[in-house]
Parts: sequence; structure tokens; C-alpha cells
Amino acid sequence: MRQKGNVTIYDISKQLKISTATVSRALNNSDRVSQKTRDLVLKTAKELNYQQNSLALALKSGKTNNIGVVVPYINHSFFASVIRGIEEELTPVGYHVIICQTHENVENEAKQIQTLLNTHIDGIFMSVSKTTQDIDHITNILNNNVPLIFFDRKKEITGVSSVTIDDFQGGFMATEHLIKQGCKRIAHLSGDLNLDIYLKRYEGYLDALKAYNIPIDRDLIIEVNSKLESGAVAVQQLYNLPKKIDAIFSSSDYAALGAIQELRAREVKIPDEVCVVGFSNEPFTQYMEMPITSVNQTPVLMGKIAAQVFLEQINEKKRMTVEKKVVLAPELCIRNSSNKSKIETKKGKVRI
Amino acid sequence: MRQKGNVTIYDISKQLKISTATVSRALNNSDRVSQKTRDLVLKTAKELNYQQNSLALALKSGKTNNIGVVVPYINHSFFASVIRGIEEELTPVGYHVIICQTHENVENEAKQIQTLLNTHIDGIFMSVSKTTQDIDHITNILNNNVPLIFFDRKKEITGVSSVTIDDFQGGFMATEHLIKQGCKRIAHLSGDLNLDIYLKRYEGYLDALKAYNIPIDRDLIIEVNSKLESGAVAVQQLYNLPKKIDAIFSSSDYAALGAIQELRAREVKIPDEVCVVGFSNEPFTQYMEMPITSVNQTPVLMGKIAAQVFLEQINEKKRMTVEKKVVLAPELCIRNSSNKSKIETKKGKVRI
Repeated sequence: MRQKGNVTIYDISKQLKISTATVSRALNNSDRVSQKTRDLVLKTAKELNYQQNSLALALKSGKTNNIGVVVPYINHSFFASVIRGIEEELTPVGYHVIICQTHENVENEAKQIQTLLNTHIDGIFMSVSKTTQDIDHITNILNNNVPLIFFDRKKEITGVSSVTIDDFQGGFMATEHLIKQGCKRIAHLSGDLNLDIYLKRYEGYLDALKAYNIPIDRDLIIEVNSKLESGAVAVQQLYNLPKKIDAIFSSSDYAALGAIQELRAREVKIPDEVCVVGFSNEPFTQYMEMPITSVNQTPVLMGKIAAQVFLEQINEKKRMTVEKKVVLAPELCIRNSSNKSKIETKKGKVRI
Repeated sequence: MRQKGNVTIYDISKQLKISTATVSRALNNSDRVSQKTRDLVLKTAKELNYQQNSLALALKSGKTNNIGVVVPYINHSFFASVIRGIEEELTPVGYHVIICQTHENVENEAKQIQTLLNTHIDGIFMSVSKTTQDIDHITNILNNNVPLIFFDRKKEITGVSSVTIDDFQGGFMATEHLIKQGCKRIAHLSGDLNLDIYLKRYEGYLDALKAYNIPIDRDLIIEVNSKLESGAVAVQQLYNLPKKIDAIFSSSDYAALGAIQELRAREVKIPDEVCVVGFSNEPFTQYMEMPITSVNQTPVLMGKIAAQVFLEQINEKKRMTVEKKVVLAPELCIRNSSNKSKIETKKGKVRI
């Protein structure tokens, strides 16, 4: 059995009894060889299953046309949709997108980045994991002179562009919407506040309460993760309080769904007794018999813009001088789970 | 700014005033250099941000420890779960998993495979796209002496192992379950019958009808895709027929959900008037107020077994002689959408 990369231009030259230089010229489409020779070389190359060694080419040119995307999970519709946006922009211009998932684990993240760097990737798009504190493995991307674009979850690193949504505004809009539905005891299921996106959603929630003179009750703020169970457990905790809640704003659609299931098990009427709003606009929020209100982060657009920022950087070759921070406007998709008064979807404003 | 791969062993040798051969030996942990020299070389290499050129190493050893997974879509929970299974087996033994999606497009598939081959991948796991007829780009994997494992959707290629589920049994179990619920006019929403998995589910449906002496009515068999709308359109078509249906077995959970939404819009009672069964056990089937019966393809297990088959092949180095065809048993998860008589989940039998 032939070994990987075994056929070289030497084999072609031997078979055709011409010099390796001529073979090389023919393969590289030089006009210093005749059309006849070129055709003969290409035909023989095909017969022998010769492949121009892309690794060797990459070593020489430093360009692979491969782009890496590093995400916590591929099966969250949000991340999958950002990747779709990146692919829609970059595939037509000749890039190949390869994807790695970290499962929210910083060690995996470091390994995946190293794997991508090892294949001499032309650029990396990433959304950092929840456990990422140390950023050596991220700055290592820059040390290798590989362009890096953050999306959604980022670290503050000079010279690195990012595309995010305005999570503060998303949190504010969601909470304001609940207030306008007449809700006064609004619980917040927050994400891990070490992560900027969750902190901002939480701050948006606090700010909306303040803006409408609703007192902040720390008992109504409970940390959840993106598992259904955490939303259910939060509801159990909230129903142990002396005063009842009348709304839930969850930083995660998954926790929102878990909360709804628990409310339903307790025969609480949604939205009449408790309104529920999630975050991310995962497809299942629309599938339910009682569709769930959620904040749309416009992920396909996010991916497309991230790709455009990358292409600008590559073309301008000014990686270290340009630094774009694009902040997209969230969109509140109002559905039955919070819609007492039958109102329509609200678009946020681009603030930057 | 330093260019990619700019620091070489020559830079280290110059700085330490020792030969490049000594540097190389130190970096490769040869015992022909003293511990002191080795430590010094490693320290300097780190200071200079030297990275052993993995592409060059790969050219030499033919091994990258990178594994490629090619799937139609990353955001279908089925594929994401298979990938999780593969990662759970291969990450602990030092492999890095990189993922490509084809969006069911054979041209993308060919490009993605070439991209993976260009990075000198150590193995490829793939589930072919719906549009894949020509298989030159797949046999090219074998010509490059790279191990290939099919999962779920495969092509018949000598020497290629595969892990699938018994789709025929899945189709049979789903249909038999509906018959036992008392259903007699059972519609089938089939997938593209050019794809083996959908053909087998369809054959399982036909066989179950025959086994219970229920006449086959071609009007009740409608092709759908994995979009919700196609399920809704199929129901509209079925309700134009003179005789009413009393059950739907859908080859896709997405089409099943679309069908349920259309049935609901028509105020058809589920499961009393029409029972519905889907296929794939996507998480949303459990999220609904009316959870959907579905056939579980045990995707994490599928990924784990595919990874084990790969490791066996690598270790035995008998790629062209071993050819494993593992067929997993499907599991019917019975939920409210078809459960008139409150029965429990049924496990299939491993037939091979």
C-alpha cells in the first residue's frame, strides 16, 4: 500500500523521462514548458495519484485558506447559527471552515487552539469558554501572527476585534417588557456573572427595575446554567419565598424552559400568573404550544459581520492597528409566554 | 512583527552558540545531549516563542493526532451527539477532533474532505450528505491511506467500516407500535429514499403493515425533508384525501413537529384522533407540553463505537483487511403524542 505523500515529482519525472524541474514548472503552470508537456505531466500526475503537498505549500506560503472556529458547544443553535453566518461569507471566497468545541473547558480550549495553530490556520474566530480566566493560550494566537476575532463571549485583548450583541440592552428590554405587562415581582435567572455577557444582562435587569422604581429583591436573583434542571430548581427556590413572583427573566432559554416545566407542574398559569422571558431565541422557543418570549442575538448576522471584519483585516494587513468592536442590537421576540396584551416583537437600537 | 514560523532551531543555536544538531537533539529529547544543555535549549526555545513546526513534523512522521468529522449539519442534536461520543473516546487518548459541515451539499463535502486531507489528518469519520452520488472524493480518502469510518449515513465501499442503527427495525417498531394503539390508516412521512437510512425506515413501515395485514395505501406515503413546513404541507395533503388518517409515522422529528402544529391548527386531537411518531429523538421531542414519541438512534453510543473501531484499525494496522459493520439497536421512546394506552419505552434487539 502506498504511504501518505509517497508520490513525488521525482516519480513523475522518472516515468516521463524528463527533469524534475520541468515537472515542477508544468505543475505550477509556468509558460516555460510546452502545452504538450504540461498536459502529459498533469495526466501522469493524475494517474499516479500525485497531490501537491499542501503542507509543504503551506510551509512555503504561510497560507492554507483554512479558518478555525472555536465554540463552547456546536449543538447550541446560537453557536451553530454564528458558524453558518461565517461560512456564508467565507466559503464563497475560498476559505474552508473547520470547527472545534471546548465543552466550556479551558484545557480543551487551549488544546483546540494549538491544534488549529499546528495546521497553520489563516484565522481564528472564537467565543471563550465559561472557565477561561488565564488567556496565555489566546494571546499565543497573536504571537503566531494569526488574526483573531471574538464573537459573543470575549476577553479584553488589545488589537483583537469583536462582534457582540448589546447584552445590557437585551436585559433591559426583556425586563422593561415584563414591567409593561404589569409585573412587579420579577425574578432573574442569571448566568455565571464572571462571564461578561451574563453580567451585562443582569445589569440591564437591575437598571430597568431602577428606571421604573421597582425595588430590587436579592432573593429573586438566582444563578442557573444552560441545563433545564437548573431552571426548575430555581422555581422551586422562588416558590419557597413568602411572597409570590409574577415574572421570570432568564438569561438562558434552557433554564427558561425548565422553569416553565416546573411552573406547569405546579399548575401556575402562564402568562396570566407568571410571565416568562428567555434569552437566545433557540428554535425550540418557537416550537412549543406556548411559544416562549426570547431575546434574539441575530447570530447569523453576527457570524457574517465577524467574517467581514476578518476579511477587512486580512486585506488591510493592519492587524495590530485596526481594532473593531461591533455591537449588534438585540431583538425582543414577544411570544405567548409573556404576552398578556398581544403586542409585537421589538427591535433594539444599535447604540454604537 | 515576527512572521509565522519565523523562529527556527537556527535562532536558538545562534543565541546559545551551539550547533543546530545539538538543538535538534535537545528538542527531540535525545540522550546524546546533557540534561543541562537540554534545559537551556528548552528555556531559550520558550523565550523565543519557538514552536516545533508541526507541519514539518507531520510531513516527516505522517501523524498529526488530528481527527476529522464530516457531518451534514452540526446543529442537529443527532450529529452533535455522535461527535460528543467520538470526542469522549478519542480526546483522552490524545486526539484532537475537528469538525466540518457540508449543509447536505456534495461539493462542500468534497472540499471539506480535501481540507482535512491537506492538514494530514489521521482519520476521518463521516456521515454522507443527501446529495452524494459520486464517491470519488470519498475513495480519495482511502487512496491517501487515511482510515475512514462511516456513521449513520454510509456508502458501500469495500474496506470501510461503519456504525449505523437498524433503521429497518426502527421503522418496523414505530409502525407496529401505532398498529397496537389501534391505528389502521397510518401515513408515512418518508425522507429522500435515495438515502439508505430513509429507504430502510420506509421498508420497516411497509413490512409492519404487511405483518399485520393492513393494506398499503400509496396516497398515505409522502416525502418530506427535515424542515417543519414539509410536515405541515404533508398534513394538508393528507387531509385532502376522502378517508381520514389516524396516525403518522415520520422519518424526521422536524417533519413530525410540523405535522403536529398543522394538526393542532386544525383542532385534531392528539393522540386520540391521530397518533404521531417521529425519528431521531431530538431533545425538543421531550420539551413539548405534548412530548413526541420518537425512535432514539443512541447517537453518543454510535460515536463511541465508531471511535473504538477507528482505534482498533489504527492499532491492528490492518485497515484494508478488517471491515467492521456495527449495527446498533434502535429504541422506541413512547411519549404522549402516540400513547393512548400508557405504555413504556421499547428497546430494539441487536440483530447482528
